[in-house]
Amino acid sequence: MPMDSVKILGGGREVGRAAIEVSKGDSAIILDYGVNFDQNDNPNLPLQETPNRVKGFVVSHSHLDHVGSLPLYQISGSYPVFGTMMTKLITELMLKDFLKLSGARLPFEWMEVKRTMDNFRTVNYYQEFEIDTFKVELGNAGHIPGSSMIKVKTDKHNIVYTGDTNVINTKLVGPADLNFLSDADVLVIESTYGKYNHPKREEVEEEFYNSVREVVEGGGVVLVPSFSLARSQEILALLADKKFDYPVYYDGMVKEITELMIQNPEFINNYDALKRAHKFYRYVNGWNDRNKAIKGEGAIVSSAGMLKGGPAVYYFKKIAESPRNGVFLVSYQAENTPGRRLLETGKFDEYSPMLKARFQIFDFSSHAGKSQLLEMIKSSKKLEKVILVHGDPSSSSALANEIKEKIGVDVEVPENGKEINL
Amino acid sequence: MPMDSVKILGGGREVGRAAIEVSKGDSAIILDYGVNFDQNDNPNLPLQETPNRVKGFVVSHSHLDHVGSLPLYQISGSYPVFGTMMTKLITELMLKDFLKLSGARLPFEWMEVKRTMDNFRTVNYYQEFEIDTFKVELGNAGHIPGSSMIKVKTDKHNIVYTGDTNVINTKLVGPADLNFLSDADVLVIESTYGKYNHPKREEVEEEFYNSVREVVEGGGVVLVPSFSLARSQEILALLADKKFDYPVYYDGMVKEITELMIQNPEFINNYDALKRAHKFYRYVNGWNDRNKAIKGEGAIVSSAGMLKGGPAVYYFKKIAESPRNGVFLVSYQAENTPGRRLLETGKFDEYSPMLKARFQIFDFSSHAGKSQLLEMIKSSKKLEKVILVHGDPSSSSALANEIKEKIGVDVEVPENGKEINL
Repeated sequence: MPMDSVKILGGGREVGRAAIEVSKGDSAIILDYGVNFDQNDNPNLPLQETPNRVKGFVVSHSHLDHVGSLPLYQISGSYPVFGTMMTKLITELMLKDFLKLSGARLPFEWMEVKRTMDNFRTVNYYQEFEIDTFKVELGNAGHIPGSSMIKVKTDKHNIVYTGDTNVINTKLVGPADLNFLSDADVLVIESTYGKYNHPKREEVEEEFYNSVREVVEGGGVVLVPSFSLARSQEILALLADKKFDYPVYYDGMVKEITELMIQNPEFINNYDALKRAHKFYRYVNGWNDRNKAIKGEGAIVSSAGMLKGGPAVYYFKKIAESPRNGVFLVSYQAENTPGRRLLETGKFDEYSPMLKARFQIFDFSSHAGKSQLLEMIKSSKKLEKVILVHGDPSSSSALANEIKEKIGVDVEVPENGKEINL
Repeated sequence: MPMDSVKILGGGREVGRAAIEVSKGDSAIILDYGVNFDQNDNPNLPLQETPNRVKGFVVSHSHLDHVGSLPLYQISGSYPVFGTMMTKLITELMLKDFLKLSGARLPFEWMEVKRTMDNFRTVNYYQEFEIDTFKVELGNAGHIPGSSMIKVKTDKHNIVYTGDTNVINTKLVGPADLNFLSDADVLVIESTYGKYNHPKREEVEEEFYNSVREVVEGGGVVLVPSFSLARSQEILALLADKKFDYPVYYDGMVKEITELMIQNPEFINNYDALKRAHKFYRYVNGWNDRNKAIKGEGAIVSSAGMLKGGPAVYYFKKIAESPRNGVFLVSYQAENTPGRRLLETGKFDEYSPMLKARFQIFDFSSHAGKSQLLEMIKSSKKLEKVILVHGDPSSSSALANEIKEKIGVDVEVPENGKEINL
């Protein structure tokens, strides 16, 4: 009988570009097929598997680093892609936006994006489906709305890939379903925060809300640069839930994504809060609104979360120089982004104004922290092997050491291209 | 005739732990012998060369990542160490402090530090000296007071190692001497900022001064977490030069180092400013002073620059929660430091208070930026080979590409252990 194996096509010893192949003999499925970017903003695609071995794709969630390269396989073939309804709807927006921004540097075009979406088949959580001889099931991953852990059942193994995952209640998503992990014998788990724990979300929420209120009550406007997908909605829902009744504006692709979430309540943890935000807060519609928003007193939630373009850059330039205002970061600022430059030098580019506004940083991470990852691993009662992916090498290897010491299960931190026989 | 070679013992594709061996047949000298730290704070020493080949050491400057491992060679042998007077005096303080903090994890002790200092021979800039058959000369590197570029002359080559270097006028040091590079045919150059340029120092100085003044005039106190060596003195000299006449306190090892600089005026660019700071600003002497300092209105310059212990942590906890105060970062915040945690999550550790004080970041880098490094390389008129060290891999390789494209000279980014025959 052919042996099962897991091969890392992307996300090995790196963050992003997730792509995990599960094989049985000459048949394979690929879990996620994402992209990340080099320092010159060129897209890095995952490794490729011989097309005729691949029977289909399953995607954990709609972030580009998990779905961005899906169209590559639709150039000369036609492959089914499975995921939740929420994932499908947002993936379509994300891929179109990706094409718009990076199209010239991509090996695929609009037609392949369309085929990806045509081949997308939605499945519900806990509804088993088949791809070739693989049995597959999704469970809530707690990362963003629609995010899934993926369980692949072969004759011999239950392989669970967590995708990106979190185990806490946020306004937007509930915690990952740890029961889903109980029968896994192989766990492929993300390790973005293999070194650190996060502060308690309720405390961060409280501090954030109080800080926004203080600035606004002092006559200022608060800019919250934020990813359009999920982080923005969480911030909006949080403010709405706290009954923050000053003007709140949101700008960028956040609008379309919020609409999709409003139409799919079953994927939202505190739907009332998001609905309230959608009802009372105001989408910025053109330059008139934009100029009204910066007049304060109020809050502006706008992409890009790392100040890599988007209306947030405009707002920043307008409001940063006044100490009355606030600039509150709620997203991780990756290497080679203007946001990281801001943190390192106080300026996000050459023309950046001086930041005199109240400047605060809040940890609204949607990834499990170190102890939480260890808890997740302990939830798998039959575990034989842990494979750490989606973490920078120092983070993953720190976590690997903790797993060996504290849980004592076999653990690997494979490079891209590594095939692990089960 | 034996061939000359350069071997990278440390600082290859990494920042810190600088150690460059220059060999001629079976005779060698080592330029810098530093240390850096892993994520658990364990010291990483450079590679070692067979002791009987080594004829002596030359050090570029007194930062631990350039001198921290010198005592290793004094365990069973006795080797001369050459450097400027300023470098010698500060190296002694740094090594003693290093022993105090990390002694238990080091393979050497007080006796070896003492022997290192006993064997330290001071040389002036541009005063040629000999080690075995090597002719050596130092030139101003512009990084910190006493910092040197090191020129090694063999029969066939002029090899210049820049150490850490900068090419601008700051209050504390003048620019690196580019003429010193003109006859180099091999250039071993740092590449910390191979990707970015820095903002103009005068503008940063102006912004910093104005920001401090604004906070203090509003009744607040400004904490400037800062390295005891050089960055603190630059900040103090800057405030003094601008005639900032509110109370300024300085705390930590900054005192001893400032005294050494005051005693060696020839190494200080704007000596009057530093002297003024030394005269009018106040060293914190115990807890009474510390509690007086946080009452404002004034500024506190205190180690550690990355909030890794030191009085800065105490001050931070006391002043961070009031929006009237300021926390101004003036140092790079390295990976795995509390300062970096602060930038990523808004808290520097679990017990960190909420940072509501005005929070600003200023780029007072003492390393040349990308364009400046390229200018330096162009100053070498006979250049045959550039060897990039002391940079993280992405920074060094970005710079290597620019050098190939724009200057067209042979360039390498060697790993530790790599020997390059000239």
